[in-house]
This record gives sequence, structure tokens and C-alpha cells, in this order.
Amino acid sequence: MQKQPVAISRTPFPASEKIYVSGTLHPVKVAMRKITLTDTRIHGRKGDAVPNEPVIVYDTSGPYTDPSVDIDVTRGLPRLRESWITGRGDVEQLPQYTSPYVRQLQQKGDNMPGMSITAQPLRALPGKNVTQLYYAQQGIITPEMEYIAIRENQYAEKYYQENSPLWHQHPGNSMGANIPKLITPEFVRQEIAAGRAIIPANINHPESEPMIIGRNFLVKINANIGNSAVTSSIEEEVEKAVWSCRWGADTIMDLSTGKNIHETREWIIRNAPVPIGTVPIYQALEKVNGKAEDLSWEIFRDTLIEQAEQGVDYFTIHAGVLLRYIPLTAKRTTGIVSRGGSIMAKWCLAHHKENFLYTHFEEICEIMKAYDVSFSLGDGLRPGSIADANDAAQFAELETLGELTKIAWKHHVQVMIEGPGHVPMHLIKENMDKQLEHCHEAPFYTLGPLTTDIAPGYDHITSGIGAAMIGWFGTAMLCYVTPKEHLGLPNKEDVRQGVITYKIAAHAADLAKGHPGAQHRDNALSKARFEFRWEDQFNLSLDPETARSYHDETLPAEGAKIAHFCSMCGPNFCSMKITQEVRDFAAREGLDEAAVLEAGMQDKARSFAEQGGEIYQ
Amino acid sequence: MQKQPVAISRTPFPASEKIYVSGTLHPVKVAMRKITLTDTRIHGRKGDAVPNEPVIVYDTSGPYTDPSVDIDVTRGLPRLRESWITGRGDVEQLPQYTSPYVRQLQQKGDNMPGMSITAQPLRALPGKNVTQLYYAQQGIITPEMEYIAIRENQYAEKYYQENSPLWHQHPGNSMGANIPKLITPEFVRQEIAAGRAIIPANINHPESEPMIIGRNFLVKINANIGNSAVTSSIEEEVEKAVWSCRWGADTIMDLSTGKNIHETREWIIRNAPVPIGTVPIYQALEKVNGKAEDLSWEIFRDTLIEQAEQGVDYFTIHAGVLLRYIPLTAKRTTGIVSRGGSIMAKWCLAHHKENFLYTHFEEICEIMKAYDVSFSLGDGLRPGSIADANDAAQFAELETLGELTKIAWKHHVQVMIEGPGHVPMHLIKENMDKQLEHCHEAPFYTLGPLTTDIAPGYDHITSGIGAAMIGWFGTAMLCYVTPKEHLGLPNKEDVRQGVITYKIAAHAADLAKGHPGAQHRDNALSKARFEFRWEDQFNLSLDPETARSYHDETLPAEGAKIAHFCSMCGPNFCSMKITQEVRDFAAREGLDEAAVLEAGMQDKARSFAEQGGEIYQ
Repeated sequence: MQKQPVAISRTPFPASEKIYVSGTLHPVKVAMRKITLTDTRIHGRKGDAVPNEPVIVYDTSGPYTDPSVDIDVTRGLPRLRESWITGRGDVEQLPQYTSPYVRQLQQKGDNMPGMSITAQPLRALPGKNVTQLYYAQQGIITPEMEYIAIRENQYAEKYYQENSPLWHQHPGNSMGANIPKLITPEFVRQEIAAGRAIIPANINHPESEPMIIGRNFLVKINANIGNSAVTSSIEEEVEKAVWSCRWGADTIMDLSTGKNIHETREWIIRNAPVPIGTVPIYQALEKVNGKAEDLSWEIFRDTLIEQAEQGVDYFTIHAGVLLRYIPLTAKRTTGIVSRGGSIMAKWCLAHHKENFLYTHFEEICEIMKAYDVSFSLGDGLRPGSIADANDAAQFAELETLGELTKIAWKHHVQVMIEGPGHVPMHLIKENMDKQLEHCHEAPFYTLGPLTTDIAPGYDHITSGIGAAMIGWFGTAMLCYVTPKEHLGLPNKEDVRQGVITYKIAAHAADLAKGHPGAQHRDNALSKARFEFRWEDQFNLSLDPETARSYHDETLPAEGAKIAHFCSMCGPNFCSMKITQEVRDFAAREGLDEAAVLEAGMQDKARSFAEQGGEIYQ
Repeated sequence: MQKQPVAISRTPFPASEKIYVSGTLHPVKVAMRKITLTDTRIHGRKGDAVPNEPVIVYDTSGPYTDPSVDIDVTRGLPRLRESWITGRGDVEQLPQYTSPYVRQLQQKGDNMPGMSITAQPLRALPGKNVTQLYYAQQGIITPEMEYIAIRENQYAEKYYQENSPLWHQHPGNSMGANIPKLITPEFVRQEIAAGRAIIPANINHPESEPMIIGRNFLVKINANIGNSAVTSSIEEEVEKAVWSCRWGADTIMDLSTGKNIHETREWIIRNAPVPIGTVPIYQALEKVNGKAEDLSWEIFRDTLIEQAEQGVDYFTIHAGVLLRYIPLTAKRTTGIVSRGGSIMAKWCLAHHKENFLYTHFEEICEIMKAYDVSFSLGDGLRPGSIADANDAAQFAELETLGELTKIAWKHHVQVMIEGPGHVPMHLIKENMDKQLEHCHEAPFYTLGPLTTDIAPGYDHITSGIGAAMIGWFGTAMLCYVTPKEHLGLPNKEDVRQGVITYKIAAHAADLAKGHPGAQHRDNALSKARFEFRWEDQFNLSLDPETARSYHDETLPAEGAKIAHFCSMCGPNFCSMKITQEVRDFAAREGLDEAAVLEAGMQDKARSFAEQGGEIYQ
């Protein structure tokens, strides 16, 4: 077994360090990123340096950005949750994979190329339910829940105590969300117990750092990766996962459809600090050589168990594509655009039978609860064009997803609901309203929506608009879209564009909802901008590399980064500089802002003009 | 005088030709772009080719994309509107520029390098008012108004008559806009007369193709260009203007602040097929060597006349930055970020006098009505950070802009109102509501708004979100933001990114408002996508070059462009292909979609499966 030449991105972000905040209920250590800022310096007054508090932000990048952690991708990440999982006393280690398919692969001996470890899978002991939903309903606050409570607060408790003015923010319009000022472990438990949030946390993915998807928490984003029949390699896929997390992906969906699908997934899961989702029907279809009509419940079932034992945290299951809904798509402009949806539609028509994912739904729940795999109930009939938005097919399926949610909850299996696609702005809110109505407040997880069809090459933007809006309205997780959507496979730069666009959408939604503390980073960045602290402005941004390189294209000299002007206006015209002068002038003259305008001002104004009206002399 | 080596973009768009639609009231010929599509081919059935109607779209690119027009940038564009303007009998040609500044420049002899023509300026005859608003209020439908009516319809009347199913669209939520099914010249006149729309159309810019900015018309976008003290050259600026129009800019603001500001503007205006806006205070400041406190009404007045006689179509005038509002900005996170606003604030404080743009407002109106320059009443106190959104300073100024609107209308001068900046999503609508309330439905023209501060390098996206929303709510024109916002000067690719992002926002807004015909292009593109007509998909997109190149990155072979799959899923997994098979199967079997599910279906399903369940055999 030889090592693959994988180049994994591990450079820490500039001026940033990883900090670990300890829990009080459990021995959890929650990773966050601390961005250190420079001092504010008021020019013209020597020695006047006012320090700026560091800014602590939510960090999805995992151990990769902690230089003190030794990572060997052939061995996988440290198994953070392993002792929590085994410590609950409700799981058993299996002697081997249950799936005959995996056993065959293992016998062939060429599986998992390059991996030097193979974990033995865990499964719930007979009669046990190991889902976070089950624990929550028993009143148990798990380490995962405490981890999440600390993580969601982004160390806000520290700032709140200090009552920093940087914490000022607009109250927001929560659109019915119920977000507390500080997230407590008990609040997390309640939200999970109510089904309003999920913690995708397969007991076979202990490497994952706990995170939560729910309307009353920070809006999350998902990035899709995957090889394909046409291009890509396993090594690229692992780096894509790390790369996605680096820029802010909260979960990753592995949508691989090509060869070595099991092995690719193993690499990704063992090295992923975030939950992994899949669409198991893709692999099942692989197993029947791409012929949808040859699919069967047995093949699908085996695939579910295979992936559950490997550690997949959530499954997209297109159980709402019912036989009777298929004709509703025939007059659509773009028919069925979900791959999973079209596979199931083809199967249903070929056999004239009801979707086996629907007829076997309770058996699927039985499997998923033994590993704590969460449902992502797939929207197989989502609209693929503006013309098809909010149509009968789409909403019929949504109602069925609501019914299935109740069944999953009966089994204490966690559920989120997939939505949108292409939807014009004015029809977005109806999607959220109907989802809340029909799906009993289970978290909504939407692709975009794209708000127009006419911009292939820019669909991260067409969809970022819709994503921000639906996030504000209550969607808990936004599935990213890259510039290559509809056109080709995303490369690394496309993935970055997609992830950053969706971080923007999610953050814009958090601001609009009035999520406590959400505005802190905006305030800190804008203060840095106003004070010409260029380095801080770069370092506080979602993509410091790009911000810095754009600045340097015009003004590359190091001196320009402490200059009190920028290239847009040049030295004489900078509005920020002029405003600062106005403000400094008032301060220097011992005036508060009202006094500036009082009668005596006339004289002072004259002297200001006589001095040249400049502060920096 | 030697020719400059200017590389102007003139390549027509692929599969596109310029068409000219004639008016009936006036001899206008309205330029549009016709995109020719390929036939729909149903595979498996020989010879079955169904033609697709061409798609006709709004075209801002001017004569540059018409290969039959000979263009020499040193001579400027054909003077389309000249005979309309002189034909009204209310203007006189001046023997020379009124502005002493321009006369000095001309005496020096080094002005307008490379231009081989210098037009003599026109001005209204004494006692005459030459604004489109004045004409409209007299009941006159000008050629400009008829041009616009035809242009806005995008040849819809043809499609409506044919009742093409491609014209199906969602009704939209107009948010109070009143958009007729077809725009008539009389409707244009009424909207202008009511002040709800403007036609920026300086009598000294006859090269410009008439366009309208108003809530009941297509949402427009503006692109900013400009040289600066730090970089750029005149040649680059002209190509930037052409480039901006090429991708869809409806107007251009020349924000030059460096040397040769008059000459740069001459080049741009003479070669611009769209209206040009400026911020005259920038040049006035130039004339006093950058010292705001040295500005005076006389210098400003001379600059206004200089630019009006040159052909600037609209002026941003920061007349709402009142002395008493300045203290309202002192506690802001980012003070005053508008350059014009901060210049005026500095002047007011230095002199402790009221803003001379406010005190001389009626004189400004007198100048502007003699040339039909429109007001863009500047939002000098717009918020430069999320923290400062919708604050007292911003809304105080907005109320003053409303007062000034009434004064301008008294002089029959056209007015639009500038707005936003940085505003979180939930506070966007309040901006539109207050603008409608205070500014008497004068059109709103907003920068973004940016919906978060934390993504420098991606502010085209942070602001595209806000722009789409405020466009839906009723903003008539969106001022673009490029990826370099806050960081540096945009290059050509940045300009393209900014323009396309804003075309997306404007179009998403048109769709949401239910603008008649807006969905036509989406429908055509989605139909092409569904039918794997790749070339048509590229050609119908906002940026065919980028769409094509992204596709070719993954599947470069020509054959792939007619392949019935794409690189995202590979040949076996394409959902569109599967859906088409499902649909074709039903059609081939002579079934309508309901019949597919009837009892007899079981047999047909079996035969489908026996045949391999594939259509393409």
C-alpha cells in the first residue's frame, strides 16, 4: 500500500489561531478561530494606540488549520467523538461490514487504496436507538449538544459580559424563528427533541465536529463534491473536501457516481471534520450498471447499510417521488431535474409500481436509527426552471415529505427536508411557508434557489440571491451552487466561489434574522475599514487571500497597506479620510458633535480653514 | 493629431444579429438583438426537427455590435438624436463653450487628444425648456418616448399575437408597480409627465439611444467607470464604456477624478450609446486642487455648465447633505462614505455655512433645464456599513431629497433619487417605502445595497443580493458594484463580473415583479437546456463566452455540445436525459400523462423494461 501524493491545504488563516473552548458538562473542547487585530492609531497624536479586541469566529476548517495537529490522510483525522459514542454503552463493534458488497470489495483486497486504517463499524445494540433525537427526547444532553451550544455562541458570552459596543446590532426580523440571546446545551436539546433541528452525527463518523442544522441556529451551508465518470481522482476529492471546509462548508455531500465510489467515500469520511451526506441511490444505480429499472429494494437496502456503517451522516432519500406525481411533471419546461428523482420516476414507470423508497420507508428508518444517520428527504420533483417553480408536482411531493417526517420521528430518526431549485424571488417565501406548514418545522435544506435561468456561468450568484432570502425566511441549511452549475464540473476555484457566495448568503440571512452576535464581524471589519487598518480588513474577511490580492493588484507596495487612502479615489478624494478628519477635528477642538454647530463654530471653522483644513500636517 | 491605439470590442454576440424596429409616430429605428436558435430534434425519429423561434432581447451594446456600422472613435458615434433635437425648434447652437474653463483648455490646444471632431454645444433658446418632462407635460410624445416604448417591449407584440407558450410566465408580485402588458408611447409620456420615470437625454448627447428609468419599466443598471490619480488611461476608459454597454450597462457614470478629466469625458460621451452620468463636484474639487474648503458656488456652477454643454445626461448633486445633518454621522461606524457627501460636509464645517448645492438649488435647476440634464439627487449620507443602515442621517437626507424633487419638478427638470449602500436584508424594504413616501414616486437609483460587510473581494455578490431585492421592491436603476469594491480599481474582467451580476439582479427583479415578457428568455434557455441544445443555451445566456468556456473546460470536444448528457453526471445518470426518456416513452406509446398510470400501464411498463427501458436504441 503506497501513499498517494495528496496536497492538502493546511495553512492557517492570517493573524488567526485555533482556540479550544472547554465545556462544563462534558470534556468537550470546541474549536474556534481567533483573529487578532492591530491597534487603532490616531495619526497626528503620538503614541495614541487603542487596542482592538480579537474577533472569534465559527470555524469549519477542522484540525487542518491547527499546526499542532499532526495529520496523515492515510490514517484519517483524530476520532474526536469516539469515546462519547462508545461511552454511552448502547453500541457494539461489528466483526465486519454487514454489506456483502463491501465484504466482496474487501476480499478483492484492492479497496481503499492508500488507507492504512480500516475502522470496524459500530451499530446500535439490538433494541437500542442511538440517535441524538432519541437522547434528546429522553432528556439527555449529549456531549455533541454541549459542543454545539458552545460552538454556536462563537464565544459571545465573553463579549456580552464586556458589553462591547462592537456587539451593537440591528434587532432583525426573525420571520418567526425563536433565537435565544445565548445558546445553552439545554436549548440545543429542546430543539433536537422537537425535531426543529438535527445533529448529523453517524456513530461511524467520530472524526466529525458536532454541528447543528436548525432554524434557530446559525444558517449553515453545504458543498457538494464528487468524482464522476468523466474526470477527477480520489486525491482531488479529499482535498476538495478539506478545501470546502476551509472556506466554510458546514457539511459536504459526496455525490460521486464514478468508479471506486466506496473507496472515495472512505477517504473523504475518514478525513472530514464535518458531516458527510450522500444520495445512496446513486451508488445503488452503479451496482445495477446504470439501469434504473433494475434497481430493487434489496440492492438499495444493502447500499444504505454499507454507507451507514462507513459513517455517512445523512442520506438524501427520494421517497416522496410517488407514482401518481410523475404525470404532474410531463408538461413542465424541464421535467424532473433531480437525478435521484428521475431515477425513481424511471423505476416507477418501468415497473408501474409505487416508489420502493416510499413503500419500504419504515425499514429505512430501522436501519438509520441503528447508526444515527439523519434523513435529508429529497425533493426529487424540485423545479429545474423558473417556469416550473412552485407547481403542483413540487408541492405534492412536499406534502408527502411532511407525512414521512412523522414516520421518521416515530422511529426517533432525525429529519431535514430538501427544497427549492429554480424559483423567482416573489415565490420563494411560499416555499418556506408551505414547508413549515406541511413538515412540522423539521429543518429546511434548500438548493439555492436560482432566481433566474438566464445566467449559466454565474449561477452561484443567481442562486446566492435566492439562498440569502430563503435563509432569512427560515431555511436552516443552504446547498451551494458553483459557477459551473449546468455547465461542467467545478474546479477548486469554483468550489471556493460557491462556498464563499453561500457563506455570504448564510451570513446575510443571520443578520436579517437578527441572530445574536451575527453583526459583530461586520462591525469589526467596517471599523477596520474606516480606520484604514487594511491588514485587519483582509484578515476579517471571508476570503483574506482574495481581498489582499485584489488590493495589491492596484497598490502592491507594503506601504499602501497603512496608507490613509486607497486606489479607488486616490489621496485627495477619499471620503473615509475626509470623514475622519471631520470627526478628528471636532474631537481635537474638544467639541462634541452638537457643539460643532454652535455659534462659536464660525471662528473655529475659520481656524480650521487657515490651518489648511487638514489633520495630518 | 494622431490616432490612439484603442482596441474597441466590436464582435457581435454569437448567433445574434442587430435588428431595427421602426416607429409609427416618428422615424425612429429601435435597435434590438435577435438570437437565432437551432431546431429541436427528437432523437430516434428521423427528420423530426421542430424549429425554435428566435429570441429578441433588449440591447444596450449600441452600434458597436452592428458590423454594418463604421465606427471611428476619434469621430464618435452617429448622432442618432440630432435631428430630433434640432427639429423641435427650441435650441440654439452656441458659438463656443460657455465655461471659461473650457475656453482656456481649448486655447491651450492640447484638449481632447485624438478627437478629430469637436461639436458646438446646444442650449435651449431663452425662455425655452427642453426637458422630456416639460414636453410630456405639454402632451407631446417625443421620438425619444416612442423609441423607448418600442425598446421596452422587446418586440413582445409579435410574440403576444402568436400566443407562443414560451410567453407563459408567473404573474409576479409587482409591489405596487403598475406595469402594462405592452408599453405604449402614450404610457411613456404619462410616466414621464408624472415624474415616475426619467429619460436622461441631454441635448448635447445625441449619440445616446433613448432609455427610460422608472419603476413601471424594465429595471436598469448603471456601471461606473473612471480614471484616477493612480492608474488608467483615456483609451482604457473608452473601451471600458463600450465594454460595460456590451455586457448590459444601461447608463454609465464617469467618475474620473484624475488629470484630463474634461478630455476623458469628451471621449466617453462622443462614443457612448447610453446616457452618461457624472458627479460634478469631483471635477470642481479638481479645480481647487482637492481642497474642499476652497470650493465655491461659482466654480461649481461653471463646472455644471461645462459638463451640460459637453453632453452629460445626469448629474449627481449632493444637495441633501445639510449642515444640521452632519452631526448625525459623528457616532456612525463608518461616518460619511460618499465622496461627494464628505466633500460637502467638509465644506459646510469649514465655513459653517449651509451646503451651497442646497442654497443654490433653483439656479442649478435653471442650468439643467436648458440642456435637459436630469438630477440624480445624491445620497451623501448613505450608510457605509451594516451598522449605519437606515439611521437618522440617512433618512433625514432622504426627506430633504423629497423636498428638492418638488423644486426640480417646478422647473420641469427630471429627477431620480439615489439610495442605499450597506443595508441588511430585513431593512431594505423600509428604504423603498420611505423613498416612495418622501420622494413622490420619483425613480429610485440605488447602490447595491450590500447585505453584509464581511466579504471584500465579493461585494458584487453581497450587493447583488440586495440589488435584486430592492429592484423587486421598486427601485428603477441599480448601480453596480464590482469584486474590487473597497479594495482597488476594477479591471475589464471585474467590470464584466459587476455588470453581469447586476443584469442578474435586474432580471430577477423583473421576473419577481411579473414584468410582461420578462420570463421569455428564461423559458427559451431552459427549453434549450432540457433539449440539450448546448449552443442555444450558451447563446441565450447573459455571457455566452463564459458559459461556453466553462462547458469546454470539462468537455471540450465539439461532439459534446450535441451530446445528450453533460459532465456533471456523465452519460448514465443525467436526470434531464432520463426525464426526456420518460416523456418520450409516454408520447411514443400514444399516452397522455394521465394514461401512463392507467391500469393497462402494467403491460406497457413491462414492454418498456423488456426493450431495455431506453429510448435511444
